[in-house]
Amino acid sequence: MKTNPKIVRKIAELRSEIANFKQRESGKADSTVGFVPTMGYLHDGHASLIRQSATDNGLTVLSIFVNPIQFGPGEDLDKYPRDEERDIRVASDSGADIVFLPSVEEMYPRRRVTTVTVDDVTDRLCGASRPGHFDGVATVVVKLFNIVQPDRAYFGQKDAQQVAVIERMTQDLNIPVEIVPCPILREEDGLALSSRNVYLSPEQRQEALVLSKSLARIPEWIAEGMNATRLIASLKDFIGQSPLADIDYVDVLTYPDLSPPDGDMPLFETDSNLLIAVAVRFGRTRLIDNRLLKPTEVGAYICSAK
Amino acid sequence: MKTNPKIVRKIAELRSEIANFKQRESGKADSTVGFVPTMGYLHDGHASLIRQSATDNGLTVLSIFVNPIQFGPGEDLDKYPRDEERDIRVASDSGADIVFLPSVEEMYPRRRVTTVTVDDVTDRLCGASRPGHFDGVATVVVKLFNIVQPDRAYFGQKDAQQVAVIERMTQDLNIPVEIVPCPILREEDGLALSSRNVYLSPEQRQEALVLSKSLARIPEWIAEGMNATRLIASLKDFIGQSPLADIDYVDVLTYPDLSPPDGDMPLFETDSNLLIAVAVRFGRTRLIDNRLLKPTEVGAYICSAK
Repeated sequence: MKTNPKIVRKIAELRSEIANFKQRESGKADSTVGFVPTMGYLHDGHASLIRQSATDNGLTVLSIFVNPIQFGPGEDLDKYPRDEERDIRVASDSGADIVFLPSVEEMYPRRRVTTVTVDDVTDRLCGASRPGHFDGVATVVVKLFNIVQPDRAYFGQKDAQQVAVIERMTQDLNIPVEIVPCPILREEDGLALSSRNVYLSPEQRQEALVLSKSLARIPEWIAEGMNATRLIASLKDFIGQSPLADIDYVDVLTYPDLSPPDGDMPLFETDSNLLIAVAVRFGRTRLIDNRLLKPTEVGAYICSAK
Repeated sequence: MKTNPKIVRKIAELRSEIANFKQRESGKADSTVGFVPTMGYLHDGHASLIRQSATDNGLTVLSIFVNPIQFGPGEDLDKYPRDEERDIRVASDSGADIVFLPSVEEMYPRRRVTTVTVDDVTDRLCGASRPGHFDGVATVVVKLFNIVQPDRAYFGQKDAQQVAVIERMTQDLNIPVEIVPCPILREEDGLALSSRNVYLSPEQRQEALVLSKSLARIPEWIAEGMNATRLIASLKDFIGQSPLADIDYVDVLTYPDLSPPDGDMPLFETDSNLLIAVAVRFGRTRLIDNRLLKPTEVGAYICSAK
């Protein structure tokens, strides 16, 4: 469903395009607006979000904005990869109707004094490694939601903590948007798709497979009766065998509240969703990956292992 | 324009009432929604906001919610005056169509981890005296805006800093709501209307006139060539003559950015709006009042005094 998306760079123009659509389609079944917020350099993971939105909604808005306030000092804001022309092609191939490409000045026209902070679910994982990161994410997502006013917004489950933060914020602030998490997309060899993968040297690219490979061992380890502490240690051991891997974190948490599961209990006895998340540096490139298990899935491992 | 307002206590019901109105009135001139958020114990000041909204909009939603998160420890949350029956009468007499009366559980059904913080414009005045107060205000206003999704929201200029905080937050977060500040209403003797006036003993009530009386001297003092420092000192001297008055703050700031005006310059030379704001305790009751001057008004004082 190739489209010829309208390119919009100004907030006022975007609002007016969306208002026109809503007025035109008012009362029709297909009058909902889907929204896919991204930082661009789109890959098939993003394309899958756009396609899902285009399937679910009458209008799909894709935003591409490298949000400076979610980058810390020394992070990769300046060298974050950009390719507007290619992004618009991906948007078109995937079914986007509008591509919103605001400048930093358009999004932050004066000194910003308002911040949206989400505590608790940001204490661990990327929240701990990247202080202030999720304040920046939460603030820009609230801004974009207020600009687009979508019915549904699509986020990749690869940033599982980001999804948890945005779901919680949306509930806490009564934002009338349905958050739709979408599955991680992977290369054929298992590497999770990421705009940052382009930073990797061929050797790093090869060793980066240790993330998905370690996560693939989880069912077997849970079936063996591991508790959270042992599972974390096993994952760290596995990843540590890669000489180029510099582990940032490996953690096992309940989902979506992101708190540690009950102490010594074998994980197959847990009755919560479990998020097993890893962040590993290869040189200066930091990659994340995760696996999200429902209680029935967790239980199934021990059954199938018996 | 007496109305028979619908009383709504649940968020879902309110959303559905407003959606019905919008669908019914879609395309008509009078299809806008006006919103008056209050903490109840309504006085004529609130009534004037409701009347203004009823004049401007097809539907007026009044909310009454004593928001616990904007009260500090030791403040008057528990004894904040409440009178639901009378409030509904005032709402009806003033033209409200819907009165939203949520419980604390309805607004905060689970541990809230999301906070909206506004820096800078909260550094002084009530922001300095009541740490965390404006985080609580900003957070509940974002929630209420997301629930009601009004076209316009009405706030009393008596809480001038609150108006500045909400205007700034609305801009920073791209909230599609027009903020409409409305003038302070006063008793015949000059006391600014406030739900907290009921706390005052007859003696305190009499002495509380020192607030409006001190503010009434401002034109004359500015015409004399006072700078900010001298104006603040004169106001403090004037208020200090009341033995029951315990000054919390007296300040002169530019508006709406709430920063100190240029040092030694006579105020009649300023080219910004000026907010002159006072907060004074009488016993355990803290009252606020203010005067907002446009540059032309400030200049007019010297002209008329010459």
